Formats: sequence, structure tokens, C-alpha cells
Amino acid sequence: MASLSGRSDAETGLNASAERLHDRLATAIDALVPTINDLFATIARSSADQVGVTRDAYGARETAAGDILIEFARCQKLEAGYDRVGNLIVTPSVRSEHAGEVLIGSHLDSVPRGGNYDGLAGVVAGIAVLSAMQQASLSPKAALRVLGFRGEESPWFGTAYLGSKLFLDLLTQSDLETLRRFDTGKTLAEHMRALGLDLSTVGKGPVRSLGGVKAYLELHIEQGPLLEAIDRPVGLATAVRGNIRYPFAKCFGRYAHSAAVPRYLRADALMATAKLVAFADDCWRSLIDAGHDDLVFTCGIFHTDAAEQAMTKVPGEVTFSLNIGGIHDEIMQQMHSSVMRRAEELASEHHVKFKFGPRVGTGAVALNKELLQIIKDTGNEVGIPLYLLPTVGHDAAMFARNGVPSSVILVRNTNSSHNPDEHMEMEDFILALKVLGSAVLKLC
Amino acid sequence: MASLSGRSDAETGLNASAERLHDRLATAIDALVPTINDLFATIARSSADQVGVTRDAYGARETAAGDILIEFARCQKLEAGYDRVGNLIVTPSVRSEHAGEVLIGSHLDSVPRGGNYDGLAGVVAGIAVLSAMQQASLSPKAALRVLGFRGEESPWFGTAYLGSKLFLDLLTQSDLETLRRFDTGKTLAEHMRALGLDLSTVGKGPVRSLGGVKAYLELHIEQGPLLEAIDRPVGLATAVRGNIRYPFAKCFGRYAHSAAVPRYLRADALMATAKLVAFADDCWRSLIDAGHDDLVFTCGIFHTDAAEQAMTKVPGEVTFSLNIGGIHDEIMQQMHSSVMRRAEELASEHHVKFKFGPRVGTGAVALNKELLQIIKDTGNEVGIPLYLLPTVGHDAAMFARNGVPSSVILVRNTNSSHNPDEHMEMEDFILALKVLGSAVLKLC
Repeated sequence: MASLSGRSDAETGLNASAERLHDRLATAIDALVPTINDLFATIARSSADQVGVTRDAYGARETAAGDILIEFARCQKLEAGYDRVGNLIVTPSVRSEHAGEVLIGSHLDSVPRGGNYDGLAGVVAGIAVLSAMQQASLSPKAALRVLGFRGEESPWFGTAYLGSKLFLDLLTQSDLETLRRFDTGKTLAEHMRALGLDLSTVGKGPVRSLGGVKAYLELHIEQGPLLEAIDRPVGLATAVRGNIRYPFAKCFGRYAHSAAVPRYLRADALMATAKLVAFADDCWRSLIDAGHDDLVFTCGIFHTDAAEQAMTKVPGEVTFSLNIGGIHDEIMQQMHSSVMRRAEELASEHHVKFKFGPRVGTGAVALNKELLQIIKDTGNEVGIPLYLLPTVGHDAAMFARNGVPSSVILVRNTNSSHNPDEHMEMEDFILALKVLGSAVLKLC
Repeated sequence: MASLSGRSDAETGLNASAERLHDRLATAIDALVPTINDLFATIARSSADQVGVTRDAYGARETAAGDILIEFARCQKLEAGYDRVGNLIVTPSVRSEHAGEVLIGSHLDSVPRGGNYDGLAGVVAGIAVLSAMQQASLSPKAALRVLGFRGEESPWFGTAYLGSKLFLDLLTQSDLETLRRFDTGKTLAEHMRALGLDLSTVGKGPVRSLGGVKAYLELHIEQGPLLEAIDRPVGLATAVRGNIRYPFAKCFGRYAHSAAVPRYLRADALMATAKLVAFADDCWRSLIDAGHDDLVFTCGIFHTDAAEQAMTKVPGEVTFSLNIGGIHDEIMQQMHSSVMRRAEELASEHHVKFKFGPRVGTGAVALNKELLQIIKDTGNEVGIPLYLLPTVGHDAAMFARNGVPSSVILVRNTNSSHNPDEHMEMEDFILALKVLGSAVLKLC
């Protein structure tokens, strides 16, 4: 497509008439604040767990959130319902498609005992934009469609993005029968049937053709503390991090008496693994120093064997995970190779054996540069400059990977996500919402 | 005392009549081999766990081993029973005390899922020596007493040598109420009362006065692989390693999203602890290179929190142990200081806090040189030259520390100890037993 915004690249800044439109939209958004506050609170109550909120993927509390959003959207004079694979879909009451289609999406589910905003904020934002545009009598020339995906969080079925994958027709019938929810033990197919969905269309094409889609936009809380740390309310994602992961790595040595065995006769699994992780951190730091500050490395699991370990025993076995993330596959691969080489050396030095187990992960996803520029400019134009940063995986990654220009607007979040202490200030959300709204306005 | 052996230092080598006595003892020991084999097998069966053997300190299977040994000793026409703090005590049926007293001891308990010989071999050896002397009509001029201590292994109550400490009156009533067994949760007092013991005498003096004790001898399997590595069946300990230990160390950081949080904003407890352990290993290696090859270092326990850990979470907490051992207190202290200094640096680099918890451990114990020389000579005289090496802690350390000349004869052991694969060849045991017997003969 020549230009996502339908304007020539020379046209930067807003002319007076466009500025008025954006002001009208901003005013309509401000008017919605109390209603949006109530909406978040109502859904938080319906999702309340012992601590935090739980909206179980393809389950009752995810559906309850969807139902509340449908009710809200209808009150706002929008059309709302579920599509054939169970995702929430909201559209303006009057539709125009002659300037293509713009999708605004995020997810309905949460991790078990997570926070209220991870996912939900983006769906609420989409509906709020549609409502504000309608209130401000701004008739979009493109079709607007808000999507609330189910099952984005990986803990439920062991894999992420189920709702957007179903929307894009990236799951097979066999996937539906194989994936099982960790808590219910039921398959995805069983869960979907319980929601009254007809699974016969799965595998027979996307829910909607992507032909006319000019952009997929997602608003999401930042899952890290970067915006908080640098005191910026809104960010814009440059890329979605990929990763190289070893969830079930092991190091095998030989258990031995801690005092009686001299160093040269040991096969110390702990020492070799500790050194490998320490090396990986040094390697990571060097790569950051070389400018690859998008790179992340985490060893989240690391333990001697609970049944065998003792202060007086040289550890004969260690279980650990490795998790390299980044926006450049070749840099992740470079770090991976260094770590694997060092593991070989350490195995020989410490007389141990590393068995890394299955390697999993996904490639990094660059986000559309033209769309990025449009949204970045929009931020500047409406007085909300956006901080550029890479992001973790969101449904947007699925659309980007399938050729749809995609963008993620990130809202400052205190205390990280995936925990009950996740926190977003409504003030920050409204700023991000205004950027989203203005970007939609520009794209329509 | 002028001379432990009752002979002047000039008398080296055995005269013809002494040689005959040693031969008679050796012949009696050889005759016992099938009986000893059966005894080890019977006790192994009574202590069998899912894997290896478990003789729980102050518990049923430790008592079962003691009961079998009492039965065996009585069959060998020895006197046997438990003393007032529950330790096994075996004496010849005819006693003479006019040349003082010689104690032969080791322990009855094992670590959880350990091997059959760690501890038990020494108690069996003591009873076998008494039996062989009686069979060979060798009447000792000193009182001989075999002790089978309970609770030597530290995993049970978090501290070692309970039986020998009770024998020597080194525990208080308050210790009995404070120490708890890790698996039952019951106090040492509760465990002792369940064995029918009267605790009122604890803290009121040793079970036996040490006044007339000229030596404490202990036969023990080597807990390391050194004798195996250098192909020597029997060793003799020069010193007992002391240690500086932190059984319950922690590192506290902050849990965070593995992809969303950049390195400089992390407080990664795992990374800081892994680096500390890696540093300690490097420090250890340097000290070995500088000639301190008796030094040992082990991190036996190291784990992220099982309830919180995930491949996708930066660890906010790590639990670990540190265990430095050696025969020179100042070298252990030097390594300890280096590790603590590095911990401070790492805490600052990684924004974490180390809380090392209680520091425990004991000083190194040099063993009596005169007794060492007598036993070394005995080995040479009976054609079983002994390899000198430092050893880990045994009950002997308690006696040495309390002024009793003590010695530890070490038997080659395949696959280290504290594990089910611990293995001692009966042939090696008999060689060590002959050295022990001849040493006792000389001391009587």
C-alpha cells in the first residue's frame, strides 16, 4: 500500500481542520473517563480471585468479561458479539469500508491470579475509541473492528495467542484436540464446545479476510518497568522480542562427600551450571555494551535435586532453564552459540554432562516501520511523545507475522505484569487512548 | 602420659613373642570373616530404604541396628547394651582396668538413603576386635570398650555428633528441647524419651570419666575417593577437617518479567548467587594451587523458590548453602573473607541482598601425634602400610577436642559415602581391622 494514512509523506503535522477533529475526539474520550473507570471495576469484580484477578482462557470468567464488554458496547450504541471462534467483536453501528479496515485488538484472558489490565486495557481502549468517535460524530471512512481475543496467556494451554491464532486460522482441528488446559485437564475443543462454538469451520480460513486490513493496533500495559523507570507514560513498540529457550535443561555430575573428595576428583553439577549462568550474564552484558540493549537473558529455574541435596554433598544433578530474548535473531543466536561453547568447556573442566533438552522459542518480529512512524508522529502532534522500546509478545505479533502492518502502544505499568500488583494509572491510560484514537482517526 | 603403648620409644618393631600374639589375633579375625559378612547383610536388610539404607538418628532403624549388634555381641560372649544416653556399649566379658581404658567407637546412624558402611563399619570393627581377642585368649590389661554412637550424621537434627556429645556431656537440656529432626519435626528430647531414656542426667557429667582413657580409636570408611584413586586399601588420618558453614543462606532480589525488564533494572537473585559460587570455586582453586590441597568447598544446596520460579521470571529469591572445610583454620578463614567481600560487591552490582543466616562449623582438629606414630608403626609391622591423609569429621574429633588421644583408620571406599553406591571391599575392611586389632593389642 502506498501510504497507510492515505496522505502523502510530505504532509506532516495536522492542518487546522484535522486538529479540530483530534480535539473533538480527545474531548469525547475525556467525557468517557468515569464510565471507563466503572467498566474496569465491574470486570475486576467479576474476575476476582483469592488474590488478583483470574480470567480463565475459554472459561467462565473470560466469558463474563466478554459479556460485560458486550453490554457496555451496546450501551454505547455499538454493535457487539462473539465471532465464530469465540472472540469478542465490536463495530460501529454505521459501517463504511471504502477505505479498508483497521483492527484494534487485545485479549480478554489473564494469567492465573494476575492483574486487571494485562489484555483487558487494550480491548476497553478499542471500544472506547469507537464510542468516542461516535459521540464526536467522527465517521470513519475505513471499517473499524475491535477484537477481544481469548486465550492469549500461555499458562492455560501451555501455548500463547490461541484466540488470535483461531482468528487467523493458524490452528488445526488436531491442535484443538491436543491442547489441554492445565487446571481442568480438558481439551481446547471441549472448552470451545462448552461455549457453544461450532468447531467445523476451524482450519477452513480466517474469520475475516486480511485483504483489506490496513493496520492492526494494540494498546497494552508495558509488562516491564522501563517506562516507570524513565518516567514516561506512553511507549511505542519497535519490535516484538523473539526467544531461544531451554525450559528443561539438566547438568549431570556425581554426588560425593563435601569434605572427603578433593577438587580434582569431583564432578560438581552445581559448580558447572553456576559458572555457565555466570558466563551467560557476562556474555549478555558484553552484547549490551556493544549496543544490543534489546537483548535479555534469564535463568528463571535453577535447583539442585530436592530429594538428594544436602549441605554436605557435592551436587550430582542440577535442573535449570535458559531464556534468551531479543529483537534480532542473529544476536540471540550469537549469544546462544557462546553459551553452548562455554558449556562444552565447563563439562570437560568439571567432568559433568549438560543435557539441554528441547529447544523452543520463536523468531523476533519487526513491526511495520511506516505504521510506527505514523503513530509516533501522531503522538507528537497531540502532545504525547512516545518512547520507543521493544516489547514482549502480544497478539499483534500474530498479525505482524501474517503480513498485517501492526503496532503496539504501551502504557506505563507499576510492579510489572502477571501478578496482582500490576498497576496502571488511569491518567496514563487516557493519554495512550488519545494516541490510539488519533492514530485511528488518521488511518481512517 | 609417658607412652601410650606402655613401651619406651626405643622399642620399635615386634619381638618374637609379640609377633605371635599379633598372628593369633589375625588368625582369629580371619575366622570371623563369614560372620562379619552376615552381620553387615543382616543390618543392611533391617535398614533398607527405597534406595540405599536409612538408619534414622534416635529412631527405629538406628535402634534396630543397635539391637542386632547387641545380639551379635552376646553371641560372641561379649557384654552389650545401651548406656544412659542411648549409645551402644560393648565390653569383654572379663574386664581389666589396671592399664587404663581404650575406647573403640563409631556411629550407628546413616544419612537418609546412604550406604551401609559409613559408621557401622567402625562399630562392627570394634566388636570384631573384642571378639577376636577373646577367641584368641588375648586378655587385655586395659579396659576395652566399644561405643556405637547415635546421631552422628548432621542431616537429621541439623548438627553432627549428638551421640558422642551426649557421651561427653557436651549438650544441655535446652539443646535437647531445641534440636528438631527434619523429618519428624520432633525434638531430640522427644526422640530420646521415645527410646525410654531418662534425660535427667544430661548436663550432669560424662557417661564415663575420661580420666583413665588412653586412646579413642575409630575405624571408618574413607568418605572420599582418595585411597581408591591412589590404590591404597588403608589410610590413617593426620587431622580432622574443620569447617565454616552457612546451611541456610539466602539471596533476595525482585521477581520480574524475563523479557520486559532490561538488565540494569533487574535485581536477579539467581545471577548474583551463581556468580558468588563461581567466584568461591575460583578462590578455592587458587588456594589449592598455592599448596592448600586439604581445603574443600561445596555448595550442596542451591535453588530458586519452587512455588515462584518460572522460565519467564527473573528470580527474586535463591536459597543456598556454603561449606568450606580444611585442616588450617586460618586458610578457611581467608577463603571465607574473600567470599564475603565478593558477596558485598555482587549485592551492589546486582541490586540484591545476601542474608547468610547462622554461621556454623567447627575448628580443624589435629590428631595426637604419638598415637598416630604408634598406629603407623603397627601398620608397617603387620605388613599393612598406612597412607596418611586428612579426614572429615568423625566422632573421634569430639574425643580429640576433649583431650583424648584419638586416631582414625580409614578404609578405601568406592563411590564416596552418603550415597547408596558407597562400597567397601571386605578384603580392605579386614586389613584395616587387623591394623586396629594390633593397635589395640599394643595399647593394652
